[in-house]
Amino acid sequence: MAVEQVLIGGTWRDANFDGTFQADNPATKEALPAEYPVSTWADVDEALSAAAVAFHEMRQMSVDRLELFLNLFAHKLEENAQALCQLAHTESGLPVSPRLLDVEMPRTINQLKLAAVAAGEESWRMATIDTKSGIRSYYAGIGPVAVFGPNNFPLAFSGAAGGDFAAAIAAGNPVIIKANPAQPGTTRELAKLAFEAATEIGLPPAAVQLIYHMANEDGLRMVSDPRLGSIGFTGSKGAGLKLKEAADKVGKPIYLELSSINPVVIMPGALAERGDAIAAEFQTSCLMAAGQFCTNPGLVIVEEDENSAKFLETLKSGFAAAPSGTLLGKGVLAGLTANLKVLEDAGANVEVAASGEGSSAGFTNPNTLLSTTAAKFLANPEAFQTEAFGNCSLVVKAKNLDEICQVIDSLEGNLTGTIYSDTDGGDDPAYDQVAHHLRVKVGRLINDKMPTGVAVSPAMNHGGPFPATGHPGFTAVGIPASIHRFAMLQCFDNVRPSRLPRALHDENPTGHTWRMIDGVWTQKNVG
Amino acid sequence: MAVEQVLIGGTWRDANFDGTFQADNPATKEALPAEYPVSTWADVDEALSAAAVAFHEMRQMSVDRLELFLNLFAHKLEENAQALCQLAHTESGLPVSPRLLDVEMPRTINQLKLAAVAAGEESWRMATIDTKSGIRSYYAGIGPVAVFGPNNFPLAFSGAAGGDFAAAIAAGNPVIIKANPAQPGTTRELAKLAFEAATEIGLPPAAVQLIYHMANEDGLRMVSDPRLGSIGFTGSKGAGLKLKEAADKVGKPIYLELSSINPVVIMPGALAERGDAIAAEFQTSCLMAAGQFCTNPGLVIVEEDENSAKFLETLKSGFAAAPSGTLLGKGVLAGLTANLKVLEDAGANVEVAASGEGSSAGFTNPNTLLSTTAAKFLANPEAFQTEAFGNCSLVVKAKNLDEICQVIDSLEGNLTGTIYSDTDGGDDPAYDQVAHHLRVKVGRLINDKMPTGVAVSPAMNHGGPFPATGHPGFTAVGIPASIHRFAMLQCFDNVRPSRLPRALHDENPTGHTWRMIDGVWTQKNVG
Repeated sequence: MAVEQVLIGGTWRDANFDGTFQADNPATKEALPAEYPVSTWADVDEALSAAAVAFHEMRQMSVDRLELFLNLFAHKLEENAQALCQLAHTESGLPVSPRLLDVEMPRTINQLKLAAVAAGEESWRMATIDTKSGIRSYYAGIGPVAVFGPNNFPLAFSGAAGGDFAAAIAAGNPVIIKANPAQPGTTRELAKLAFEAATEIGLPPAAVQLIYHMANEDGLRMVSDPRLGSIGFTGSKGAGLKLKEAADKVGKPIYLELSSINPVVIMPGALAERGDAIAAEFQTSCLMAAGQFCTNPGLVIVEEDENSAKFLETLKSGFAAAPSGTLLGKGVLAGLTANLKVLEDAGANVEVAASGEGSSAGFTNPNTLLSTTAAKFLANPEAFQTEAFGNCSLVVKAKNLDEICQVIDSLEGNLTGTIYSDTDGGDDPAYDQVAHHLRVKVGRLINDKMPTGVAVSPAMNHGGPFPATGHPGFTAVGIPASIHRFAMLQCFDNVRPSRLPRALHDENPTGHTWRMIDGVWTQKNVG
Repeated sequence: MAVEQVLIGGTWRDANFDGTFQADNPATKEALPAEYPVSTWADVDEALSAAAVAFHEMRQMSVDRLELFLNLFAHKLEENAQALCQLAHTESGLPVSPRLLDVEMPRTINQLKLAAVAAGEESWRMATIDTKSGIRSYYAGIGPVAVFGPNNFPLAFSGAAGGDFAAAIAAGNPVIIKANPAQPGTTRELAKLAFEAATEIGLPPAAVQLIYHMANEDGLRMVSDPRLGSIGFTGSKGAGLKLKEAADKVGKPIYLELSSINPVVIMPGALAERGDAIAAEFQTSCLMAAGQFCTNPGLVIVEEDENSAKFLETLKSGFAAAPSGTLLGKGVLAGLTANLKVLEDAGANVEVAASGEGSSAGFTNPNTLLSTTAAKFLANPEAFQTEAFGNCSLVVKAKNLDEICQVIDSLEGNLTGTIYSDTDGGDDPAYDQVAHHLRVKVGRLINDKMPTGVAVSPAMNHGGPFPATGHPGFTAVGIPASIHRFAMLQCFDNVRPSRLPRALHDENPTGHTWRMIDGVWTQKNVG
């Protein structure tokens, strides 16, 4: 069987490769037939050079073409949704329905359409015009972006169609897609449609390129290459931090979305008021898609009392009865097993570890609920906040509010932090304290609902303090803010009017672009 | 003589120190009498703990107090301007008039007042409200900020009163001032006034702290400490990159302003049209304050023809006749001497190196103009773009437009890039090419004027691609954008209305705060 082709410099061609790999079907544990190349540096090098050329061309192009491309690509996804979701299911084990076809594909399409609007409207550029000093500035593309997609969202976070891809293109950057090795076929099909759309719209040939895999050292070399502008990476902490080190060394902005255990604090009043309902919400959130979400609630903090004891009992029977979902692959299972062991070795009690009815024949882990005390947690916070990515969570029982705050203070940065409190104000004084401590540890503070939903909203922050991400000022979800990651600030001082980019002309470029003119946000022309 | 005291945790007290240092008067080369401590880790450690406490307190404080503080501090600078400028002159050699009292102090005061307005108005927070999804977000302080000020702006970029200080405080962060060792007395006096203002307004005791100096390893330890939120550093590339490496390792945002040679391209038509005028502008820009500006034009690129030959001759006689100004200290002189040698060793011709009439009795370097060809530059671009900080510049003679673009392509990131072109359109086609190449290499693109003026404007970008700074998306000058460096993005999802911060309430917090509500920038209330 022929080895699959890479997309470099506008051509699907045989890779320069050193070894091949296959993906598994996680629902059957069987290897899928297609063989994908592990590219050598020659491929990466050629892709980087082609991307640099494409970037120069894209800078001279009308932004309308970016908008047309993103919309056409979205349209092609709509047309091919069924086949793409079937393939993504085969490579990820995630159900076509209700997940891939009903939720993730529409989200992916929506993100591309929002990015299209942003690209054409140019409000994301934050054009700032100071008429008195003759200085104008805005955000513009930073250069070719390498996007490393994760395994847990084969569509919505895919390097070939997800949020990073959409944001990088909207800013006017070519993208080098690094496929997630668990889903090379899905990535290839997405990249095919993206490339078709790019060709039809007339983007430069190397606006979209695809490499399936490369040696670790070539990945490090790629992210530190001067031809590359920036990197988007969603995945494991180990790989992400190595890439970050390489990129940091040469001052290249790299945006990471790494581990997060997403603490959920459930106040005593809330448990007294609606413990069963919260237990049900928590179980759904924690076990949905076998817990393989970046915002999975991996840490629950409660005060020890009869209601929290009852809450734990409810969860135990719920976890035991629920089917354990299919994991994304053997790598996820191996990581989960190893990290559960770290937690157990640290002294966590296994409250339940059971595979409920109807469990998959594929890669699975028993639904696992662990518990410990705040005192034990505080004695070894590093081990106890190990992320065990999958269908498990750790319940921490605190003696009092003070211990809850201490546990929070001991946490690293997280994407989200959630507080449940009662509705009649009894928890309010304690809420204020908990929220004060939690606020600076998380990107998104949530009340009274589980963290697993990540709405595509301009107000969303899917980001947070290190090591949840590499920079607490940026979000990976939410147009237009996510676009800023792949942009540089460009200032024009005394530049003659005819030489300014469209977004900085006196005339509003679209009639509805938001710009800051002499201290006023406006859609009007200058003057 | 007693060793000067540090300001830690709200008290001026004797330092824990290992050695002391004195500053020089660069105009006389004599050591100034005051002795300053090189603090041990004990001082840094105590400052970090106190800053962490202060940050928690400042987060609960009304932002009006930040505004009051910044305004009162500005007022105290106005009251003490004469004495402060005299002291800054003694430690820097920069003239009281027209520089320190007439330009730099008013700029410093203006920056503080602009930061005060921004802190109180809260538009800098970019509050984003999505009423449909119930998600609201804004920027909030990131935690204690360590500010390392440079030696070339004892007031406007001082760790104790400059742009980084103002921005860090406006975002609600305590500041740990690390004095520039060349100007410890000026920094002490500024910190005294800042602390007085902080005390009068009731900021937490450790909102402003001062350490004069510390061992390098303690500096690295400080910037990687979990109690610190962020770092602002303006200074040498060597020191800056070491601090960056330490901060990057723990994922801490660090904003650097490092070296920049600020290429100036003078097109043939411009030289033909007004070569003498440009020569005069260039000489003023290059030799003012002995060339010790971050935006000093250290690289001039011209096409070889009779006009550029004449331009060079004009500069040679001008440089020879001009007095060579006082350098900021023996460190600057040593660095300049060493870097000029790197340029000469690379093959640069010394066109002129002459101390004109009336030169200072202090640390000086002969006004130096070097030249080379584009071909030579391109054979060794790394050496030829060595920044020689001081009163010198390198003229690169290119054969044609193509060589000019190649030289630009070979450059690292810079703060500014300037293009002079003629006024009748003859240079326009070539301009477009040069600007296209130069645009992505610099933070600020300038037409027809020298780069040394850095206006305090919301549209300013005093930043640029690495290694000019550590991140091309941020500016060190310009309120409100410079504040974002010291902020994290905080999202509130489903958070009950009474628990939201003021800036995210339905009601506009000031009646005139700019917020993005459901896609519209507005000063109105929600609904």
